[in-house]
Amino acid sequence: MARIVMKFGGTSVADLDRIRHVADLVAVEAAKGDEIAVVVSAMSGQTNLLVGYVDELSADSSLGGHVDDEYDTIVSSGEQVTSGLLAIALRRRGVKARSWQGWQIPLQTDDAHASARIKGIETLAFNQSLKDGVVGVVAGFQGISPSGRVSTLGRGSSDTSAVALAVALKADRCDIYTDVDGVYTTDPRIVPEARRLNRIAFEEMLELASQGAKVLQTRSVELAMNNHLPIRVLTSFAKPGEDNPGTLVCDEDENMEERVVSGVAYSRDEAQISLLKLRDEPGIVASVCQVMSAANVIVDMIVQGTSRKEDQANLVFTVGRRDVEKAVAALEENKEKVGFDSILVNAKVSKVSIVGIGMRSHTGVAHTMFSALADRGINIEVIATSEIKISVLIGAEYTELAVRALHSAFELEAA
Amino acid sequence: MARIVMKFGGTSVADLDRIRHVADLVAVEAAKGDEIAVVVSAMSGQTNLLVGYVDELSADSSLGGHVDDEYDTIVSSGEQVTSGLLAIALRRRGVKARSWQGWQIPLQTDDAHASARIKGIETLAFNQSLKDGVVGVVAGFQGISPSGRVSTLGRGSSDTSAVALAVALKADRCDIYTDVDGVYTTDPRIVPEARRLNRIAFEEMLELASQGAKVLQTRSVELAMNNHLPIRVLTSFAKPGEDNPGTLVCDEDENMEERVVSGVAYSRDEAQISLLKLRDEPGIVASVCQVMSAANVIVDMIVQGTSRKEDQANLVFTVGRRDVEKAVAALEENKEKVGFDSILVNAKVSKVSIVGIGMRSHTGVAHTMFSALADRGINIEVIATSEIKISVLIGAEYTELAVRALHSAFELEAA
Repeated sequence: MARIVMKFGGTSVADLDRIRHVADLVAVEAAKGDEIAVVVSAMSGQTNLLVGYVDELSADSSLGGHVDDEYDTIVSSGEQVTSGLLAIALRRRGVKARSWQGWQIPLQTDDAHASARIKGIETLAFNQSLKDGVVGVVAGFQGISPSGRVSTLGRGSSDTSAVALAVALKADRCDIYTDVDGVYTTDPRIVPEARRLNRIAFEEMLELASQGAKVLQTRSVELAMNNHLPIRVLTSFAKPGEDNPGTLVCDEDENMEERVVSGVAYSRDEAQISLLKLRDEPGIVASVCQVMSAANVIVDMIVQGTSRKEDQANLVFTVGRRDVEKAVAALEENKEKVGFDSILVNAKVSKVSIVGIGMRSHTGVAHTMFSALADRGINIEVIATSEIKISVLIGAEYTELAVRALHSAFELEAA
Repeated sequence: MARIVMKFGGTSVADLDRIRHVADLVAVEAAKGDEIAVVVSAMSGQTNLLVGYVDELSADSSLGGHVDDEYDTIVSSGEQVTSGLLAIALRRRGVKARSWQGWQIPLQTDDAHASARIKGIETLAFNQSLKDGVVGVVAGFQGISPSGRVSTLGRGSSDTSAVALAVALKADRCDIYTDVDGVYTTDPRIVPEARRLNRIAFEEMLELASQGAKVLQTRSVELAMNNHLPIRVLTSFAKPGEDNPGTLVCDEDENMEERVVSGVAYSRDEAQISLLKLRDEPGIVASVCQVMSAANVIVDMIVQGTSRKEDQANLVFTVGRRDVEKAVAALEENKEKVGFDSILVNAKVSKVSIVGIGMRSHTGVAHTMFSALADRGINIEVIATSEIKISVLIGAEYTELAVRALHSAFELEAA
C-alpha cells in the first residue's frame, strides 16, 4: 500500500464538472487501496475576484496600514469551498472523504501574512484519518499563524503546500496534476517536436524552473529534492483510468547521466543593465550587489568586462524586467558610492538555457551550444554557467530561433 | 462606556458599497468610545450560490449519505469573506478592527451540522481584544463542532448568533440592523398608517414573530428574553450619524401595559385540515397530535366541534402549508387508529392575530376583535388564544380587510 498526495490547481477544479472529473480521477487511485491526500486550489477566477475585493476596499485610504491578515482570511475561502465540494463529489462516488482546512490539520506557518512560510505540520489526526481509509481533501495554500489567524503561503504556492504535506505525511509520491501531461524537453509551442521526459532529476527540474519553465514552482522542487520525495507531473485532463504516466521528478540515477542535455528553457522576463565607465577599483561588483539587495532586486547574470573602445571597465547584469525601474532608481541614488558614469538599459533580451546533469561528465557541451547559435548569427550578450546549466542572454527577437537551434543541436527530439 | 453588538444581514452587506456604508455606521458608534462587536452575514446571493453548488453535486447519487459537515465548510465561507472585508473597510476609516471566525472565538456548537445549536462561547480572547479597543467583526451563523469541524446554525440564524454573542459578552444591547426601520404595529404594505413602535416587550415580539411578523427570528427573541438582553431593531439604510431610534425590544415596563394591543400580525402560510365524522371517544386529539408529531408536522390551532347536521364530532386544526401533503399522508395511513371518515383540506386560509401584554389586565379585547371582524362579514373558522394574543383563522381573501379592521379597531394608528 502506498501513500500518495495528489494536487489539483485552479483550472483543474474550475467548475462543478471539472470537480466531478477530479473526483473520478481520485476515485480510481483510491480504489487501488492506497492512502490518498488531495490538495486543491480555488476554482479558477475565484482568487482573482476575492483579491479584487480586497484591493478595491484597501484603495479607499491608507489609514490602518497593512491588511494582509484579513486578505488571508478572505482569499483562503476559495480553497475552503473547493475542498468541501470535492469531498462531497468523492462521497457521491462511494469514496470516504472529508475536507481539511489549514487550521484544522494544523499546518503552522509564521506570521508573514500573504506570503507565510510553513513552520510545521501536525499529522497526528490527519494520519489517523488516512489510516481509517478516508481521503483527506486539503485546502491548499493556507495555514494558521502563531496567533491563530488564517495565513496563506502566497499566490501560486499550492504546489509547495502539496509537497510540504507529502513530506510531513512521509508520502511515497506527490502527483501534481496540471494542464500539461508532463515536463517537456522544451516548450512545444516553439518546438513541435519537443518530447515529454519520462524522468528528470530534481536538480535539472530546479534549473529548468528557475530558467523559465513554468510547469512546477521552484520552491516546491527544492523542498521535494531536500526530502527525496518524488514528484510526478501529469495532466488532469486525462480520462479516469487512462494511461497517464507524466514525468517523474526524482533523485538522479545512472540512466539520466547518459543524457547530456535534458531540456532547453527560455525566459522573456529579463532586462539587461549596463553600467558604463566604472571606476577601476576592486569591490565594484560587491557594492552593486549590495545596492540591488537593499532595493530588494535580485541580480541574475553578471559579467564584468573592458570596453573595447575606451579601455574603461563596464559591468553588465540582468534583473527581472518588472524590477528595472526600482533597480535604476537605486543605482542613480548610489551613483557616487558605486562609481559609474551612465546606465544603459536593454529590455529587449531573452535568456535561453540548456540544462542537464550529463554536462558534468560530458565535454564539448558549451562548444556545441555556442556553435549552434553562431551558425544562426545569434550574438551572445552574457553567459552564465553552473555545473549542470549554461545560460546565454540574447536579443529577444532570436528567442524562438535559439530554442529551436539548441533543441536540434542536442538531438532532444530523439526518443 | 457601553458594550454593543451590531448585526448586519445579507442585504446590508450586499456589495462593497454597502460594506463601506456599514463601516461608516460602525465607525460612528466606535467613535463614541463604546466597545463594539459586529456580526455579519454573507453578501446577499452568495449563500444561495454556495448552497446551489452543494445541491448540484449532492444530486449526483445517494452514495456516501449526508454531507452536512461539508455543506457547513462551504457555506460558512460567505460570512468569512464579509467579516474580512468589513474589517478592512473599518481600518481604512481609522477604526481598529479584526475579523473573527466561529472557530477562532471559539463559538462551540453541537455536531448537528447545518442546524447546529450553540453550546458555549469562549470570550477570554475576544473580550481582551474589545478591551484593547479593537472592533471585533464576527462571521455570523457559524461555530465549531466538538470534532473541530466548522458548523453552521442553519439558514437565517445570524440574528441568533448575534444575540448569543451579546449574551456571552455581557453586552448592554444588541442592535439588529435590517431593511426596515423598526417593528411596526402591522405590515405597512397593508396598512399605510401603521406606526413604528418605540418599545415592545420581549413576549409581544415573540408572539408577533411566531404569528407571522418576519422582522426578527423567534429563536433570537427567546434567547434575548431569557437573558434580559435588550435588542434594538433599526435600519441599515440610514445615513451615518442620522437619528435612527428603531424599536427597542426589552423587558416589559408599566407604560407598555397601558397599551391594550401592540400589533396585528398575519400569516398566509397556514392550511386548515378537517377530520370529519370522528368516532366519538376520548383521546382523539391526543392520537392526532401523536400522528402529526411522528410525521414531524407542527400542529398550530386546534378545535373540536360537533357538526350541526349529523351530530358527529369533527376535528379542525392547522398546519404549515408546506406540510399539508405530509400531514394528509400520515393521517390516511393511520385512518383506522385515529378513527375518522374523511379529510377536508383548505389551503385558502390566513391566520390573523392581535398581540399585547395589556390584554392581561384589560377586558373586552376579544369582543372588540370579533365585532370588528363580524362588522365586515368575515367568518372565523378557528380561534386560538394565549394570555397576550388572540389568533383567528379566516378565509385568505379577507386577510388585508381583517388586518385593516383590527388595526383601526384598536386605534393603533394613534401615537
